[in-house]
Amino acid sequence: MLNPAEGRRLCVVLVSTRNPLNIGAAARAMQNFGFQRLRVVTPYDAAFREARSAVGASSVLASAEEFKSVAEAVADCTLVVGSTALGHRHLQHPVMSLQDGAPMVLQELSGEESHSCRVAILFGSEKFGLSNADLSHCHWLMHVPTGEDQPSMNLGQAVAVCLYELVRGTDAAPHAEPPASAASGDMERVTMALLDALNTSGYMDTRPAADKLETVRRLVRRLNLSAEDAAMWLGMLRQIAWKMRTKD
Amino acid sequence: MLNPAEGRRLCVVLVSTRNPLNIGAAARAMQNFGFQRLRVVTPYDAAFREARSAVGASSVLASAEEFKSVAEAVADCTLVVGSTALGHRHLQHPVMSLQDGAPMVLQELSGEESHSCRVAILFGSEKFGLSNADLSHCHWLMHVPTGEDQPSMNLGQAVAVCLYELVRGTDAAPHAEPPASAASGDMERVTMALLDALNTSGYMDTRPAADKLETVRRLVRRLNLSAEDAAMWLGMLRQIAWKMRTKD
Repeated sequence: MLNPAEGRRLCVVLVSTRNPLNIGAAARAMQNFGFQRLRVVTPYDAAFREARSAVGASSVLASAEEFKSVAEAVADCTLVVGSTALGHRHLQHPVMSLQDGAPMVLQELSGEESHSCRVAILFGSEKFGLSNADLSHCHWLMHVPTGEDQPSMNLGQAVAVCLYELVRGTDAAPHAEPPASAASGDMERVTMALLDALNTSGYMDTRPAADKLETVRRLVRRLNLSAEDAAMWLGMLRQIAWKMRTKD
Repeated sequence: MLNPAEGRRLCVVLVSTRNPLNIGAAARAMQNFGFQRLRVVTPYDAAFREARSAVGASSVLASAEEFKSVAEAVADCTLVVGSTALGHRHLQHPVMSLQDGAPMVLQELSGEESHSCRVAILFGSEKFGLSNADLSHCHWLMHVPTGEDQPSMNLGQAVAVCLYELVRGTDAAPHAEPPASAASGDMERVTMALLDALNTSGYMDTRPAADKLETVRRLVRRLNLSAEDAAMWLGMLRQIAWKMRTKD
């Protein structure tokens, strides 16, 4: 996650969105990744009102702002980035991969002094994307690496992927603590218990005599047991061997 | 993009999905990023049929396979990864950030020899996520770095972000040949053989009744057995169980 001040310096701008579900999905992704400012430009029909009044509409949606033009929606931003699938239009603009563009966006968001909006990322309508007029407000374009067979992304998914890329580098999530490995002595006890169980079971009877112990030891070593699991295996194997010896 | 053969070695598994729109959205994201294999496990009511018959349903959706259990859906996979929001459940499993987990998935997808499915990424239901029983089939969990205020992602967006991360890193993916891992079906057979042996031995008598199967399944998954070792363990455990049942 970015720090909250940085998150507030970015706005997601949905231009001419037609489907209220997509406005809701964009708002949800923003909340997932720590962004608050949603702006909509001439949403289709009642899409915006519908999305806002939907059950469980988020605080992002509740505080979303509506604008009559892209120019007004990005007026306070120092960097305007268009998100779009690649096409002939883009030759008029520098196109960055999402991966390369994200650090430039983050740089613009960073710093201490200001809480005002600085960066806008524009998403076009489901059917037509961003128009040439919309694109003319953009400093550069950012595209997600989709395949040629199906380059066009769902709007809510495109917003999610773009915002994920922004927070990706800042992932402070706890790394999985590797569990404490079993000591060699523990492994050897497991080895002996397994060997004992196998001998008792008759499993070894048909095996060549040579290096039975080494074979079992290597097998147990390959398990890479944690200390906790080694203790569990030892208990299980001893119980099993005891059971085999018990005549009843 | 991955090469087509690599893309075919991954399947997206949707478990107990309730909303047909989400199945469609997952399929669309798969097509955006070059993946073909969609599997659904006990989708809610008519969700799967509805998604399939929707206007513009994709080839991914048309070729999607339906399964009655997670075990069947992942039987041919050598790596099973659960995607989920962080929670208390996950302490039983290693949790990787999406960023750290993706290279491990890519490594398992790489190579020349096989077109069969190798990696499954599981996504749970919209309301409950993956259950403990679902999670017990997973080698480890992968989480998207969402904020604490709103950690839970929309299903279609979660699929899009996870698949994006996979194709994003294609250039940096390691290409070391992994040892041939045991398929989940093999692991499940080892699990069942061990459970049988433990039950027969009386080891389970003093254990709490709840989730014995899941505990044993997780224990076996943590072994990260090779295909060869899995076969060996299966033989040993069956012999042991047979011996315990034989009174002489």
